[in-house]
Order: sequence, then structure tokens, then C-alpha cells
Amino acid sequence: MKVYYNPKPSKWQEIITRPQLDSSALFSTVQNVFEAVRESGDEAIKAFTKTYDGVLIHESRVSKEEIEVAKNSVSQDLREAIDIAAANIRTFHQAQRSSFDKIETSEGVLCWQIDRPIEKVGIYVPGGSAPLFSTVLMLGIPAIIAGCQDVVLCSPPNSEGKIHPAILYTADLIGIQKIFKIGGIQAIAALSLGTASIPQVYKIAGPGNQYVTFAKEYAMRLGIAIDLPAGPSELLVMVNKEANLEFVAADLLSQAEHGADSQVIAIVETEAESVNLKKQVELQLKSLPRRKIAEEALENSMIIILSDRQERINFINAYAPEHLIITGEAAEDLLPEIKNAGSVFLGDYSPESAGDYASGTNHTLPTNGAARAYSGVNLSTFLKKITVQKLSEKGLIRLGPSIEIMAEAEELFAHKNAVSLRLKTIER
Amino acid sequence: MKVYYNPKPSKWQEIITRPQLDSSALFSTVQNVFEAVRESGDEAIKAFTKTYDGVLIHESRVSKEEIEVAKNSVSQDLREAIDIAAANIRTFHQAQRSSFDKIETSEGVLCWQIDRPIEKVGIYVPGGSAPLFSTVLMLGIPAIIAGCQDVVLCSPPNSEGKIHPAILYTADLIGIQKIFKIGGIQAIAALSLGTASIPQVYKIAGPGNQYVTFAKEYAMRLGIAIDLPAGPSELLVMVNKEANLEFVAADLLSQAEHGADSQVIAIVETEAESVNLKKQVELQLKSLPRRKIAEEALENSMIIILSDRQERINFINAYAPEHLIITGEAAEDLLPEIKNAGSVFLGDYSPESAGDYASGTNHTLPTNGAARAYSGVNLSTFLKKITVQKLSEKGLIRLGPSIEIMAEAEELFAHKNAVSLRLKTIER
Repeated sequence: MKVYYNPKPSKWQEIITRPQLDSSALFSTVQNVFEAVRESGDEAIKAFTKTYDGVLIHESRVSKEEIEVAKNSVSQDLREAIDIAAANIRTFHQAQRSSFDKIETSEGVLCWQIDRPIEKVGIYVPGGSAPLFSTVLMLGIPAIIAGCQDVVLCSPPNSEGKIHPAILYTADLIGIQKIFKIGGIQAIAALSLGTASIPQVYKIAGPGNQYVTFAKEYAMRLGIAIDLPAGPSELLVMVNKEANLEFVAADLLSQAEHGADSQVIAIVETEAESVNLKKQVELQLKSLPRRKIAEEALENSMIIILSDRQERINFINAYAPEHLIITGEAAEDLLPEIKNAGSVFLGDYSPESAGDYASGTNHTLPTNGAARAYSGVNLSTFLKKITVQKLSEKGLIRLGPSIEIMAEAEELFAHKNAVSLRLKTIER
Repeated sequence: MKVYYNPKPSKWQEIITRPQLDSSALFSTVQNVFEAVRESGDEAIKAFTKTYDGVLIHESRVSKEEIEVAKNSVSQDLREAIDIAAANIRTFHQAQRSSFDKIETSEGVLCWQIDRPIEKVGIYVPGGSAPLFSTVLMLGIPAIIAGCQDVVLCSPPNSEGKIHPAILYTADLIGIQKIFKIGGIQAIAALSLGTASIPQVYKIAGPGNQYVTFAKEYAMRLGIAIDLPAGPSELLVMVNKEANLEFVAADLLSQAEHGADSQVIAIVETEAESVNLKKQVELQLKSLPRRKIAEEALENSMIIILSDRQERINFINAYAPEHLIITGEAAEDLLPEIKNAGSVFLGDYSPESAGDYASGTNHTLPTNGAARAYSGVNLSTFLKKITVQKLSEKGLIRLGPSIEIMAEAEELFAHKNAVSLRLKTIER
């Protein structure tokens, strides 16, 4: 971990800039997969799965029997833990429902908003070493609560042609019925274009490696919405006076073990804290199974000593961390000053892993500084708002002349005419 | 206008597909402008303004004096009309504020959402023949209500190096202070990268021609958020029994005059209505100043006869119109069945131009079928939601074991450790 001692604000831009990924080299790979899927549909998917996942899948949709077998192979303990997490996530996302009363903006002019679920959504759950059933909870639960009609889950098969049982258990638990053993670019292509067996969707959510990320970007150009621009995961811990540095080190490492490209930052007040924190990190690092990954991540990571309170806050807002932990009893007092962050963890008993799994908040969050302009996944990720207006005759009499004047000033006479024609017919 | 008589649902996909714009030819133009602005900042902007707008601008920021002069040159009538529209738009967007109570998802686990304005936003107002002051209202008012700190407006100068007084009046009225005489790709590049005189922003909103549209797409790749994918404007009118076809024709033409690439669709129940509607359109067309534009738009436009009620609804949802007018007294009864639309106009006295200017709803809406997955611009366009969680010792005791089990199942032991370490220190 690099240590910065009271860096000047003029140096911050350099410190907060994340490493850039150049995806232009992937363009033709992604384009070729999309074109092949457009032309040959399921046959192309089968061929790509053979090439990239090394397994021949004849029927990519997971059958009811496979789900039953999977459910029985998940331990009782894990099932209970998932059930508890699912209940909390459901509670928090259900509370995000909102309703909108009709507003009379002027006499006889009613305006309102209605929420509608996005009818067809795709959820991508990465494969790899660990089965990310928590991602199924985080994307599936808000989609189901929103009322999406088609929730289509894609996840790559392992070398035996299977999806991990914990993923199938979780998907079944929350009510996802369409599950496909497809991963990588071909999964995003299938969801974007549709095939004989895989439904086309209007929006795709979910994390993934750089291939999946770039495929989602490509899908956007075809008119498919996506959840968030993706980037490596991040944590910033604001270490306040008398913090338990053992806890802080554990939190930094929990983020660092995610991937070699993860970034963790601790902001401390004194040099002594920085020294002690570094020692704790090194100590705890030794016993981690994913030590190598964490070590690489720590090379991109920093301890920043900032003695000035306002500068600490300003740095956080400039960096716009995906995850922000604020230590200490008084953590909540700082919240009004936090402008840019994905999810905030207050006090000494709110580790990031609580939000990753079970507190109820979503773990799909804006990375790479995107928290300056984006929210994490929430209920509204799976909803659209439609506006509605209804003018009475009286409303149009009242508002019509203003519309006529403005339309004329914008030189749009047909706009004006649509009002004038109506006004003429109204008896006054 | 093409007329379709009860087209089969299997033919709908072809009917609803909008013409595709291939922007790949613009890529190098856009990239060159961005690179030049990155390297030479304001000097590059000045050069592009000379080339593309044909005018040499020494000071791109509009001065207070210019604003005062402009305000005095807008007619009293127009000022009053703009004031009325602004009040309605403010009322409707202010009503979109929401608050979120802390939720105890399980004992000792508090989760909530906080809204934060996006600190720096850019608003693009196109130039061209007509001064689009209504766009200033539609983007500026929600940005100001959201509490955005920097609202930066860019609009191209005319050949005299000026922005239309109505645009300056409107911007000043709603509280926008940073106004720049810059248009086209160079405006989007300036807002994305920042220069010595133009602040960099985190999100850009606003309509524009294909250059602006593609520049916004390019900005996204640099991590700048945008409001909506853009496309030509659209209107679908659902013409119910005994509709006033004169009104319907006027509405179709008001959309058609927007641009030659606009698309308007009427769904009628009988062939007789289709014949009468076509006559009305042709009749009204004759007296329009923007007749040529409207005529071209009508070539891409359609009257669709669908005798079956459910098919009419299904077609609307499949097309996902930007604007949807439903005629007749009973229009609101159909609303629960509308799944995909940008903004809906109910009954005979709610012309689209009411929403374009003054009813209070926003006129920046999803086009090109994007209404399947996107909302139009609203207050939340200029806000992010940050999630917050705070666990008490009791909360972690209760939830900790579930987190430990799940982290272990995902093979993330540092995630588990962040909980285990804390649990060990809590006296029970």
C-alpha cells in the first residue's frame, strides 16, 4: 500500500484516477460473437460454449429436475443463511416502492407518474471459482418485486456442464424460472438478440469480466439498457480517532481479495495510525487463502494521511468510492457531508461484507468514480416511470394561450394549431 | 402515410422497427474533436466554433450584460407564457421529491436510502432555426430542484455570435448562471473533459442532431453519464370510437413538423376512420409553414387499422411510443394496460403540445422503443441514491453467522473474517 502524507488537493486528481482499461482490442471479438448469434442463434451459442467453456451443452435451459437435484445438495446451513439474506433484501427493496398522487399543476391540468416494470430483463451471474449466489439475490429480488414478467438468468456452465447448486437453489427460491447455462459474450448476445430458446430482453444487469462488460456496452448500441458501467470493486475506509485498526484491516482485505484489480483506500488522521494499520494488514494477510490476489490488489491501494477534517471529506467526495466505511460512534454525523458514494457503512459493526450479503442493501454498486452520477442497483433499476397528463376543457382554456405563444416563438405552428383547433370548438 | 389493415402480430416486428442510423462513420470525427479539446482546450473550441458555426467567439461565456439585454428584448407575452410553463414544470418536478425512512431489516440492522444531487451537470440546447427555450425549462428546472451545484448550459451561437434572447431569458429565470456559446461535438467534448473556462461535468442531458448524439455516446465511454439514448421523435395516437379526427390530424402534424425523420402512427378501429383521418391530415397540411418537413415525416408514418381491442393495446406496448395520445372520455380506463410509453396524453383536450411546453410533465422522453426500458427525464435524472446501513452489536450478532456461512460458500474468507473478528470482541 502506498502511503500519502497530507497530499495537496492539486495532487488528488492523479491519486483518484483509476487505471484505464482499453477495450478497443475486444471490439471485433465481441462483434463477431454477436453477428454469429444473430445469424445462427442457438447453434452459435452451442459452438461458443464448446470453445470458451470447454463443454458441449445440448439443452442450455436448466431443467426442473436439475433444479430439484441442486436444491437437495445445498447444505441446510447455507440454505438458511440464504433465506435470511433474501428476507432482508426483500424487505429493503420492497420499501423502495413509491406512489405518486395526481398533481393539479394548474386548474384543470392533472399530471402524474406511474411505475411500470420492465417486462423482460436479463440477469448475468458470472462463473469462475466461486458460485456467486449472492448476485442472484441482489439482481433477482428487485426484478421480481418490480414485477418483471420475464426474468432470464444466464450463468456459464462448469466443465461438467453444470451451474453450481447454490446458484440454482437461490434462483428457484426467489422465483426465477428461466435459467440458462450460457456465459460470456455469447450470453449477452443471446439476451440482446434472442434465439429460438432464449428470450430477448430489454435490459441486462449483472457483473462480469472485461468480455462481459464490453459485450454489455455493445448491447447498449443495439438499444438494450444496462444496469451500470462496470469496473473493479473498491472500498474506502474513513478511519476516525480511536478506530479498531484490526477491524479496518479486515475490511480492507475483504475488498482486496475480490480481485487483483480491486482498490482499497484508508484515510487516517495521523502517521502513527498509518503505520499500525499497515502492520495489521500484513499480519492478517498471512492467513488468507486468497492471499496472492489480495497482495496484488494492495499494490494498487493506498493509505492517505489527511490531518484536516474538511480535506478528509473532500477527498472522499472527489474519489466517489463504491463502498465507504466510516468508523466510530459518530459516523452518522458525517453522513450529511457525503455527496458521492455507492453504499455507506456506518460505525464499527457494519463491515462491508454485511452489505455484500445480508443487511438488505444491494451490492451492485457504481465503481470507478461512477458514484458521482449513478445509483447502485435498486428497485427502480427494473422499473420505468411513465408520465401522464389529462387536461379538462377548462384546463386547456387556461393553459392554451401560453402554449400557443411558446409554440409560435419556437416556430412550430402545427404545435400551436393542435391547441387553437381545440379552443375553437369549446363553447365559452 | 402507409395504411395497414389488421396486420398480423407476426408482421408487427417489421412495422415497429425504426430506421437504424449508422453512426460508425462519425466515429473518427467525434474522436478528433475530443482529442483536440483534450489537448488544446479553449483554443480548440474556438477553432471548431469558427469552422462549424462560422463565427469567431473570443469569450464563450455569456456575460451578465448580454443576459440583461436579452431579457429586455423578449416580448411581455412570451415572458408571461414562459413563466406560467416554468411554474407548472416546477410544481410537477418538485412533487417527485421522495424521502425514505430507515428500515430495520432485522433486529439491529438499519438500512436506508439518501438522495444526493449530481454535483455537476451539463445541459445541451440545440441551435438551428427555432430557439428551443422549452428545452431549457425541461432540463434546467429538475436540475435546479435536485440541487445540482454546477448547471452548465451550452448552446451554439448564431452567425452573429449570439444565443437567442428567449433562451437566455429562460435560463436566467430558472437560475442557470453558467451559459456558454458552444455547440455541436465540441460542446459535448468541453463538458466531458473541461477546459480552462468550461467546467467538467458528471452528466450531460439534452437533445441534439446525430453529431451531438454520437458525441454523448462517446462521452459515456469516458465515464460521463447521459440522460437518454436519443432518436427521432414519435407520436402514437390511439383513436377510439367517435374521436374528433380534426384533433387527431392536428396532433399527428404537430409531431410530424418536428423533423423529417419523425414518425407518427394512428391506430384506428375501422377503414372509414382511416380514410377520413387521412383526408384531415392532407387538408391541414396545406396551411403549415413547415409543410415540407411534415410531408417527409408522413412518408415514414402509418395508419393502422386494428379491429380487435386487445390487439390495439398489444401493438402500443410492442411499439413503445415516446408520446401516446388516447382519445375519448374513457381514455383513462385504458391506462392500466399501457406498459410501454414515454408520456401519455388522456382525452380530447390533452394535445401533445401541452406536454411539450406547459402542462408540467417533461418533454425529454425515450424514443426509438427505449420506453420499454427507460423513463423520460425527471427529478431522479439529476439525483443519485446512496444506500446506508448501520448494524448495532446486536445486529451483527444476529446476522453475522449467516454472512460467515455465505462468504465461506463463495470462498471469500476475508469477507468472513471481517465478521468473525468483530464477533469475537463482542461480550455476550
